[in-house]
Amino acid sequence: MANAIPKRSENYSEWYNELVYKAGLAENSDVRGCMVIRPYGYAIWERMQRILDDKFKETGHVNAYFPLFIPKSFLSKEAEHVEGFAKECAVVTHYRLKTNPEGKGLIVDPDAKLEEELVIRPTSETIIWNTYRNWIQSYRDLPLLINQWANVVRWELRTRMFLRTAEFLWQEGHTAHASAEEAVAETHQMLDVYADFAQNVLAIPVIKGIKTPNERFAGANDTYCIEAMMQDGKALQAGTSHFLGQNFAKAFEVKFANKNNQLEYVWATSWGVSTRLIGALIMAHSDDDGLKLPPVLAPIQVVLVPIYKTEDEKNAVINELKILNSQLIKAGIRTKLDDDDTKRSGWKFAEWEMKGVPIRLAMGPRDLANAHIEVVRRDTKTKDSISINDQFSEIIQNLLVEIQENIFHQAKLLRETRSYKVDTFETFKNILEGDNPGFIYAHWDGTTETELKIKEETGATIRCIPLDNPKEDGVCVYSGKPSTQRVVFAKAY
Amino acid sequence: MANAIPKRSENYSEWYNELVYKAGLAENSDVRGCMVIRPYGYAIWERMQRILDDKFKETGHVNAYFPLFIPKSFLSKEAEHVEGFAKECAVVTHYRLKTNPEGKGLIVDPDAKLEEELVIRPTSETIIWNTYRNWIQSYRDLPLLINQWANVVRWELRTRMFLRTAEFLWQEGHTAHASAEEAVAETHQMLDVYADFAQNVLAIPVIKGIKTPNERFAGANDTYCIEAMMQDGKALQAGTSHFLGQNFAKAFEVKFANKNNQLEYVWATSWGVSTRLIGALIMAHSDDDGLKLPPVLAPIQVVLVPIYKTEDEKNAVINELKILNSQLIKAGIRTKLDDDDTKRSGWKFAEWEMKGVPIRLAMGPRDLANAHIEVVRRDTKTKDSISINDQFSEIIQNLLVEIQENIFHQAKLLRETRSYKVDTFETFKNILEGDNPGFIYAHWDGTTETELKIKEETGATIRCIPLDNPKEDGVCVYSGKPSTQRVVFAKAY
Repeated sequence: MANAIPKRSENYSEWYNELVYKAGLAENSDVRGCMVIRPYGYAIWERMQRILDDKFKETGHVNAYFPLFIPKSFLSKEAEHVEGFAKECAVVTHYRLKTNPEGKGLIVDPDAKLEEELVIRPTSETIIWNTYRNWIQSYRDLPLLINQWANVVRWELRTRMFLRTAEFLWQEGHTAHASAEEAVAETHQMLDVYADFAQNVLAIPVIKGIKTPNERFAGANDTYCIEAMMQDGKALQAGTSHFLGQNFAKAFEVKFANKNNQLEYVWATSWGVSTRLIGALIMAHSDDDGLKLPPVLAPIQVVLVPIYKTEDEKNAVINELKILNSQLIKAGIRTKLDDDDTKRSGWKFAEWEMKGVPIRLAMGPRDLANAHIEVVRRDTKTKDSISINDQFSEIIQNLLVEIQENIFHQAKLLRETRSYKVDTFETFKNILEGDNPGFIYAHWDGTTETELKIKEETGATIRCIPLDNPKEDGVCVYSGKPSTQRVVFAKAY
Repeated sequence: MANAIPKRSENYSEWYNELVYKAGLAENSDVRGCMVIRPYGYAIWERMQRILDDKFKETGHVNAYFPLFIPKSFLSKEAEHVEGFAKECAVVTHYRLKTNPEGKGLIVDPDAKLEEELVIRPTSETIIWNTYRNWIQSYRDLPLLINQWANVVRWELRTRMFLRTAEFLWQEGHTAHASAEEAVAETHQMLDVYADFAQNVLAIPVIKGIKTPNERFAGANDTYCIEAMMQDGKALQAGTSHFLGQNFAKAFEVKFANKNNQLEYVWATSWGVSTRLIGALIMAHSDDDGLKLPPVLAPIQVVLVPIYKTEDEKNAVINELKILNSQLIKAGIRTKLDDDDTKRSGWKFAEWEMKGVPIRLAMGPRDLANAHIEVVRRDTKTKDSISINDQFSEIIQNLLVEIQENIFHQAKLLRETRSYKVDTFETFKNILEGDNPGFIYAHWDGTTETELKIKEETGATIRCIPLDNPKEDGVCVYSGKPSTQRVVFAKAY
């Protein structure tokens, strides 16, 4: 478990895969493209769910649950939507297996063919808007603010744990509104919820922006996103919030009577984040010794490790650690007292480092005699000896706050160091191919044609047009045509 | 919303369906056999999840997540398991749709056929034990105590919301142990967790028992269950806990080195409850006016309704209710102040009755003047006027406890009234066909043959052999052969 993983500088991709496995986060399953989320990884997801769910409820949303299956014909109703998803759908065609009459094993029973095939939801706009038709009659039924926690399936060809898997877990909000303005405001509100979550919980700085038409969600009028930078300078889209206009209302005939008793199509939004955020977390903060979890998110914030040789030492140290542990728990800190007798303390140190626990406390007989305890920060690896007194819990609590801030600060520093204002295509390419690729702020002529050519020649895509973008006259870095603002280019996960 | 539903005495089945819809719990979707769980129904499920999840963690379990898809060949590995589930599986055969070249719409792309078909999990023993093979090497890796919250699919032909749907939500615990004794103890522990939950949270008395071989889970050595009585005298299996022996370990080659370094097959349990519990809840406690929620479970425990005519009255009453509401929230009570101006108070009363909120508080100008408030209990419909004083929150809190006890008491009373010791097959049939069918305690000769004949002739099945069953000599109610104990027969959902 606690053995070493490859260095980032040697093989970034293998470093990632090994870390995911050795930190106990996930592993590839025997089903192509699907992962098993292991208990520690799932505990991180549960923390994310709890914090986000509270936030969704605070902002007036309720949860519900819609079917896993989407009739094939539903997908076709919104033209762009089907274009975006039909090519990567798991399709259920039969509802029974039977014993192979000509041999052993099971075969699909040809007599149990579905009249209409069912697609495993790649996203739920269609099945939800088909339902909303019955829920919405009048402006009094609006807004409808619903979220769903669910699994979804997109048959990706190249998969990678957390970042891109055939099945993944997510939440999808689907709201219905009486006006475009209200729907757009909802889209922005949820983007803010995601940005706050990324920055204050995950300690990942993000750019709030809007996608170019080419990068929009299939079926959206506008897609807003938060974009984060990973340690290798690549971008990762960490959450999206879509203004869907009246597209799905029109596709599913969802109308409401307004205050003047006239029928209008309903306005829609959808927004989601997924287990992909765990991938973002790993690549934003970890090092060659493993994960670094921001304290607000960490399932275990403090691990306490006893050090001893004799049975007497063991009992004395563990007794003292139990007292300290209770104090920490009482202060609302999530702890783990690792008194497993079958593992050596050095092994435990490496293991908890790999798992990214923010603070490690260790105590041996000499520490006990001096009423001291060793405190090691995961983020900086600094080691301190602090005396055990009335302020103990408070000191640890303050240290957790400091670590949270520092992890965010480090990620922000990285992003600042690796953000470039670029005015020539030559420099553009050099940066992407150099040792420190990152975000490139460059002028773009606003056409999909140029966007695609740049992608083809460099692998970089337009991540977003930042929401707070300053207007600035310039010329497109590729075409030389006039432009009024810079957009963010990067290679992306 | 708040209009009437059919009476139980007139049409029990329609009463159930209408209640499910009008209380805002669920509705049938356009996907055959699948329901939409509406926000209020989902809020009840979330309460169940939170309470059970806390209990699972208290007893040492952690959550994880395994793939939705099960390769067809995995199902075949455990002979009885495949027998039990192959006939009701949703099967994924393709991974892409394409535009119909000969017309409009989409077709399954024949070039995107899977090499091996994937089944949507009907339960996860196979995919989980295939994973456990890599997780378990030594006795030090045991016990492995894992739970999963997930959706599962069983292609049932006759479906009914919550009770039997093609897709449903559940939790499934899957544990691995070094000895049969430890696995059996786990099975019992989880059965106790379920029984406590049913009785103390859902206020449904249950019989803890063991299933006959004929009614066992496919692949289990023993299936333990909790059986509840519904208001129509039918039984509902509310939870199961299976001792799986070494069956799945053998099917998936999962061995561990014991303390003597000898390889042994691992012992297994699995246990689960599902959204079916919401069906149980409805049929155990509701009446012709709607749901009756036990306070411990209720998402809203107290609803506060203002009564007024003039704007001044409205402001005064709502102000006072806001104060009382804060007091209740401070006391940890889940409340809803229904100050919706577009609905009349009579409509609100009926609506909250339908939704089963345990206590309704109503206040009009006269109540306000007298410092009184009207208190109506959902369980007994009794109406009281209490004076508003320092003990207000405490009175409401005590009343919630009383309602919880009374709802349980009523359900228990029903079960006692409808439980019969029966010694002749004539009486057996008469009771089942009479006005008050229920649980029949009768002697049985222990053979599957007799069990099936009784089922064929009466529709009743053996629900369980109670765990605390007294031994008693007798003769089988059907065959006349000797028997040492009575078992519980009933018609069942």
